[in-house]
Amino acid sequence: MTAQEIIDGVRAGTCRHIGRAISLAESGSADGRQVLAALHPATGRALRVGLTGPPGVGKSSLVSALVGLLRAAGQTVAVVSVDPSSPFTRGAVLGDRIRLAEHFVDPGVFIRSMATRGHLGGLSEATADAVLILDSAGFDVILVETVGAGQNEIEIQALTETVVLALMPGSGDSIQAIKAGLMEIPDVIVVNKADRPGADLLRAEIESALTLVPGGPWKPPIVETVAIEGRGTRELWETVTAHRAFLDTDGRLEARRRDGLARQLRQVALDRVARAIEAKVPPEALAQIVERVMAREIDPATAADQLTGPLRRESS
Amino acid sequence: MTAQEIIDGVRAGTCRHIGRAISLAESGSADGRQVLAALHPATGRALRVGLTGPPGVGKSSLVSALVGLLRAAGQTVAVVSVDPSSPFTRGAVLGDRIRLAEHFVDPGVFIRSMATRGHLGGLSEATADAVLILDSAGFDVILVETVGAGQNEIEIQALTETVVLALMPGSGDSIQAIKAGLMEIPDVIVVNKADRPGADLLRAEIESALTLVPGGPWKPPIVETVAIEGRGTRELWETVTAHRAFLDTDGRLEARRRDGLARQLRQVALDRVARAIEAKVPPEALAQIVERVMAREIDPATAADQLTGPLRRESS
Repeated sequence: MTAQEIIDGVRAGTCRHIGRAISLAESGSADGRQVLAALHPATGRALRVGLTGPPGVGKSSLVSALVGLLRAAGQTVAVVSVDPSSPFTRGAVLGDRIRLAEHFVDPGVFIRSMATRGHLGGLSEATADAVLILDSAGFDVILVETVGAGQNEIEIQALTETVVLALMPGSGDSIQAIKAGLMEIPDVIVVNKADRPGADLLRAEIESALTLVPGGPWKPPIVETVAIEGRGTRELWETVTAHRAFLDTDGRLEARRRDGLARQLRQVALDRVARAIEAKVPPEALAQIVERVMAREIDPATAADQLTGPLRRESS
Repeated sequence: MTAQEIIDGVRAGTCRHIGRAISLAESGSADGRQVLAALHPATGRALRVGLTGPPGVGKSSLVSALVGLLRAAGQTVAVVSVDPSSPFTRGAVLGDRIRLAEHFVDPGVFIRSMATRGHLGGLSEATADAVLILDSAGFDVILVETVGAGQNEIEIQALTETVVLALMPGSGDSIQAIKAGLMEIPDVIVVNKADRPGADLLRAEIESALTLVPGGPWKPPIVETVAIEGRGTRELWETVTAHRAFLDTDGRLEARRRDGLARQLRQVALDRVARAIEAKVPPEALAQIVERVMAREIDPATAADQLTGPLRRESS
């Protein structure tokens, strides 16, 4: 399959070509670069929505319910999962797989899990590339699912225009997410498993945490769902589209995209240089420098200079 | 105060000079570099112990109890805290402050909190420098306290020779720490607040998780403590020293230090280049590149090339 065939296939929305384009982009090859550059002008049409939250709050059930809703309304949906514990990737419990099975065979749904290859860095560029490709392929909605842990949540904000934070009652991780100052990130907050004890308490904690966030014209609404039964998920989607309508006024969407792009580029640039250093310092060179520090011939700061010397001189 | 005065003061173990040396190292100035290089040959004598774990498990009470124990045994202790929520830094509850107050005025105890300046990177180099200075100043024991969150825990392993992971019963974060695969990091595991319900269950979960860790000659012992009452802390310290005795055989200590140093140097090198890029790309240059991507004149990958171009060419 040539790069041009892949480009044409993605433009035609063929799943096989889309999958191939994402793999090619991940490989970082010249063909991959060509495909991305050719597809980029056609982006910017999809509704990009991020879904994040601690493990176990039911993100995959929420995704599944939203996909069902959107398909029923005739919209096409792509799901990009960067949650290694997600059933979209691995570790699915049987119930999840059954619920998702219908979507896996629906041609109006594309599901891609991004492998965590031990390096969050490469992953963030790969995820951005996948979103670019799916956007250019004409999907109406792109859902990006990440597991909640500081860094990921900031990256999802760079890639999507509406971020949904999912929490659940009675979870220490949910309380921790609130305490960790993540309340500045979401545009919509969903309390899933809202039929469990403690939903009111969780809502109160969220509302209290939100009072500490610098107030803007948009105050993140709190939606309660029981995703596994489809309860509240329609309201959740209506809230997401309300946020989009808000962005569509006063040039906010452009500003949001501009800001997201700046974050993304900065992150990608850092990741690339990190990989360049890793490549530049082979294990034996590092071992040699370590020995000199162990022998107290040089101190750690001087050793770090030796590792980064040429790069730093160039940049100063 | 000249660099030489600071160097002499640190060698003499004067707290005022030690504090000054750490600040100077943090500033990254030529004087700071000179101080570090001069002090480095005198390092390697202190027992370096890391203490990590999720927020709220009582790390500061454990540190306080261990400091009391060690002082009673005539040993000098330095505490480096990289936990922004630690009472050693800020946000102390009154009881903590009272418990710690005695240590703050004891000349055989040095307590330093590393500020999180919004960049984990710079922090890891600053922490390594502080440990170097305190080691050269002749403290018998250096305790490095970090809040548990993946990255920090790996860094603490680079800086210390014995890592203690603190958990507590009935905490979702503790369970999460176990699930997150952090069990490969600690040399000793402490179940603090062991008088609370669920201590047996937590121990069982830890033991179960430990069976999944590749077995080596050292199996992390589990110690139960109620640090606030001083219960079990003597046994905890005996377990730490048992681990050190284990390291002292078969060249394990050297191997551990060599491995830690390699991790540390790699991390410091990456952080430095990251800062170089941040410095190299002023906001207006980034904004200009972002505009070109927004206008679809260039794609994100090409934009990232423009940000990192000279650095990458140099390193390839």
